[in-house]
Amino acid sequence: MRKINDLQQYLVEKDFSQIFLLVDENTSTHCLPILLEKVDEISDKQAILLEIPSGEENKTLATVENICTSLLESNADRNSVLISLGGGVITDIGGFVASIYKRGIQNINIPTTLLAMIDASIGGKTGVDLCGVKNSIGTFNNNTISFLDTEFLGTLDKREIMNGVAEMLKTFLVADKDYTEKLIGKKTFDTIEDDFIWRCIKIKETIVEQDFHDKDARKVLNFGHTLGHAFESCFLQEQKLLHGEAVAIGMYYALKLSEIKQRNKNLFLENIFLFLEKNFVILDLHKNLPALLPFVKNDKKAFKDVVYFVLLKDIGVPVINVPVDLDKDLASINCNNL
Amino acid sequence: MRKINDLQQYLVEKDFSQIFLLVDENTSTHCLPILLEKVDEISDKQAILLEIPSGEENKTLATVENICTSLLESNADRNSVLISLGGGVITDIGGFVASIYKRGIQNINIPTTLLAMIDASIGGKTGVDLCGVKNSIGTFNNNTISFLDTEFLGTLDKREIMNGVAEMLKTFLVADKDYTEKLIGKKTFDTIEDDFIWRCIKIKETIVEQDFHDKDARKVLNFGHTLGHAFESCFLQEQKLLHGEAVAIGMYYALKLSEIKQRNKNLFLENIFLFLEKNFVILDLHKNLPALLPFVKNDKKAFKDVVYFVLLKDIGVPVINVPVDLDKDLASINCNNL
Repeated sequence: MRKINDLQQYLVEKDFSQIFLLVDENTSTHCLPILLEKVDEISDKQAILLEIPSGEENKTLATVENICTSLLESNADRNSVLISLGGGVITDIGGFVASIYKRGIQNINIPTTLLAMIDASIGGKTGVDLCGVKNSIGTFNNNTISFLDTEFLGTLDKREIMNGVAEMLKTFLVADKDYTEKLIGKKTFDTIEDDFIWRCIKIKETIVEQDFHDKDARKVLNFGHTLGHAFESCFLQEQKLLHGEAVAIGMYYALKLSEIKQRNKNLFLENIFLFLEKNFVILDLHKNLPALLPFVKNDKKAFKDVVYFVLLKDIGVPVINVPVDLDKDLASINCNNL
Repeated sequence: MRKINDLQQYLVEKDFSQIFLLVDENTSTHCLPILLEKVDEISDKQAILLEIPSGEENKTLATVENICTSLLESNADRNSVLISLGGGVITDIGGFVASIYKRGIQNINIPTTLLAMIDASIGGKTGVDLCGVKNSIGTFNNNTISFLDTEFLGTLDKREIMNGVAEMLKTFLVADKDYTEKLIGKKTFDTIEDDFIWRCIKIKETIVEQDFHDKDARKVLNFGHTLGHAFESCFLQEQKLLHGEAVAIGMYYALKLSEIKQRNKNLFLENIFLFLEKNFVILDLHKNLPALLPFVKNDKKAFKDVVYFVLLKDIGVPVINVPVDLDKDLASINCNNL
């Protein structure tokens, strides 16, 4: 991740044949003017705007085909660049398009949501959904670079900020006890200090460097995501849950499972549960289980009928590949206080 | 490329969670029984057959989406394998699907045409067409392995064999003068000796090893392909030209251009032109130029308005990145004898 101030020089040096800018109607209105103000080269090179409708429901192969067709019609060659300006949906789609158009063109992410800044725009994972299953199709794109501009945080509402805070908490939970405590000790989330963002980015970049293709070390970042993705997929049609909100639920139950599977009831600070309950709607696991199970079984971390979870031994000490019995283990989670 | 006899042991050792077999109606009928006879593990693991209709016109994102949906419905996980049994269309689509399904599963190619044996199934290039432009979308898939069974050559008709011979000639032209002469000296193509096939595979593998992502050394393999792809795309709807037939035309004009641009009229053996004229229909360049130009400009080797060709200094001595002026240089080619 670089600072947005470096983008102008980067574009001048690379001298791409054409610049394409992927936006949705929101980032086109609220973020594009901010970007154009800061980076002259985008106007100078007469960047071509590609606008797609916002929302996870458009994260499909059909959208990918439309964008590729636009690139083709504009004679985009292998020396062109696709800049994705937006949240995770835009950077996921843009990154995927860039990795398959003419077998790969340069990709630039400019994340505009907190969630995308600390998560989606780092690590090269791209993807679209299929049959309602999140990121069933995608690539690991290593021809990508991201630029951070925290000014975009001013364009977000409270819910969108908390969407990112959930993913930030996840990153700290698996890697940094101090920052976990700092984060859950924050009085309000009206502002997110830069050091939280850069610390979170640094943790993720370090983990990704060790294991770009998600075979081993990187799996810790899936903490809270096995059930989180299932909740998110389950409510995809109704648009009820944002990714971070789903991950908050997933983390809640992954922490409960960690207590059970690690046989240590006192392992986790009670105030993490309180923090999650206070800031997010924690949906009942048992009531939703029948609807969740097909999605859990289709998780990318599933092998045959066993589902492997990331759990915690302690805050900052994750354990990967913990086999979880979908009947027995999940049934033993207590949801009574919700 | 390994021999088909090694496949059984390979599958046993890898112990994939599930085996998927991509075929079309032709390879399902003519090639699958031969494969099942030789490789018990495919039946033992209860491989799931995925059949798609044959033909370049089905090499689309829609087909990719259908296959991915079938994989998802069968709960294919990241530890499953997709075996593509067929010609280049099947291996291109299968390789692409394997590289994007759940961000990548293992891919195996079992080429059943001469063309796929010596070309499509080596080097990791995958792809589908978009808006009639060949391989506009694709990946470099390095999680792939191919197995050769020349018994499948017996299932091919004469035209399909010559389709491969054209691509074989291309490989020899850019790398091996001796084999070029051996090939054009062959009396008939009723049989293709194994040493031609393995020599061709060896040349391609050596070149690909040097430059997997087609930045430099690998470009020599595009000899004949800039115009070849344009001819092929032009006649895609009418199904008039096979890939090798289009490449034969492309090579013919690339050889003519080589004479002109290298200012050496005596550079090429006249019998290569005779060989191409005798064995392939060489369509007139000038008559087709208006229809060809849009495709030439959209070639992946095109940058801005200049089109870069691979030409030859001598047989076995290719030169990459030769700028070709689409007006002046192409106009100077003599097609009178066709």
